[in-house]
Amino acid sequence: METTTTNQTTVKMIMDRWNASIKNYDNLLNSLTDNQLVNEITPGKNRGIYILGHLIAVHDDMLILLNMGEKLYPQLHKIFIDSPDKAVSKIPAATELRACWNKQCEVLKQKFENLQQEEWFEKHTAVSEADFINEPHRNKLNIILTRTTHLAYHTGQMVLLKQNGNK
Amino acid sequence: METTTTNQTTVKMIMDRWNASIKNYDNLLNSLTDNQLVNEITPGKNRGIYILGHLIAVHDDMLILLNMGEKLYPQLHKIFIDSPDKAVSKIPAATELRACWNKQCEVLKQKFENLQQEEWFEKHTAVSEADFINEPHRNKLNIILTRTTHLAYHTGQMVLLKQNGNK
Repeated sequence: METTTTNQTTVKMIMDRWNASIKNYDNLLNSLTDNQLVNEITPGKNRGIYILGHLIAVHDDMLILLNMGEKLYPQLHKIFIDSPDKAVSKIPAATELRACWNKQCEVLKQKFENLQQEEWFEKHTAVSEADFINEPHRNKLNIILTRTTHLAYHTGQMVLLKQNGNK
Repeated sequence: METTTTNQTTVKMIMDRWNASIKNYDNLLNSLTDNQLVNEITPGKNRGIYILGHLIAVHDDMLILLNMGEKLYPQLHKIFIDSPDKAVSKIPAATELRACWNKQCEVLKQKFENLQQEEWFEKHTAVSEADFINEPHRNKLNIILTRTTHLAYHTGQMVLLKQNGNK
């Protein structure tokens, strides 16, 4: 098996999972009304709108970790990562967050598609050159992998806002 | 970059994520009482005990897909995959499912550790030799990857059974 074939396979496996997870969440988001989004996923826990903002803020951080430019929405970090739900009284409206999500998905898609196969195995920005020599798994592709499980975790919660369907 | 180094890195990335997700779920499970487990994650949705049984049944199927021998608990498939929650009146008790989970984690751990790096890139049992030639991403490691996101999805739901903590 040649190196290039293997790397291509690995990138496809992980990017397929990321893209499928994004599509899954996107379909779910589009199936929910703004009224449903402001509900708590279960009494006393996070609201749907908080989870949406949280995901946008976490995915925005990926641009920095992947060395792909500036964040799109740096103002969301404080509200949706540093603070728990309901700690900040004024948060962006559902309509606004939906627009941020859509634009962000497009931007990330373009940037990810422009990366060369081999570049995915380069270090991400939160690891030093010295550490990366002994820890080559701390690469850009690993950022995609960890954010995919993070996205799946919160998708499992957001789906509870749907009226029907028990999974 | 040599092929072996790359494959080693890929296997480590994906197995690290699987192991961390199992540990995360296992810690959560151990933090919940049997009384909490029989609660619905939110009114009208799946009970914690159903999710536990569902995960055991899905992970049991991995043994078949990875060509690693027989299932440990074939009787769970009908209750926790074919049927939705509450469709089957008599299901195993929480104590029993906890024991199944613990044993299964040990068995999977041993079997996964015994696999050689290159074997992870071999086809899984649900894909034909012919299809695998053009779709080399349908390998054993991909089974781990898809089940990791599945596990994260349901962990995000189970965590709602905890009294405290909002994530």
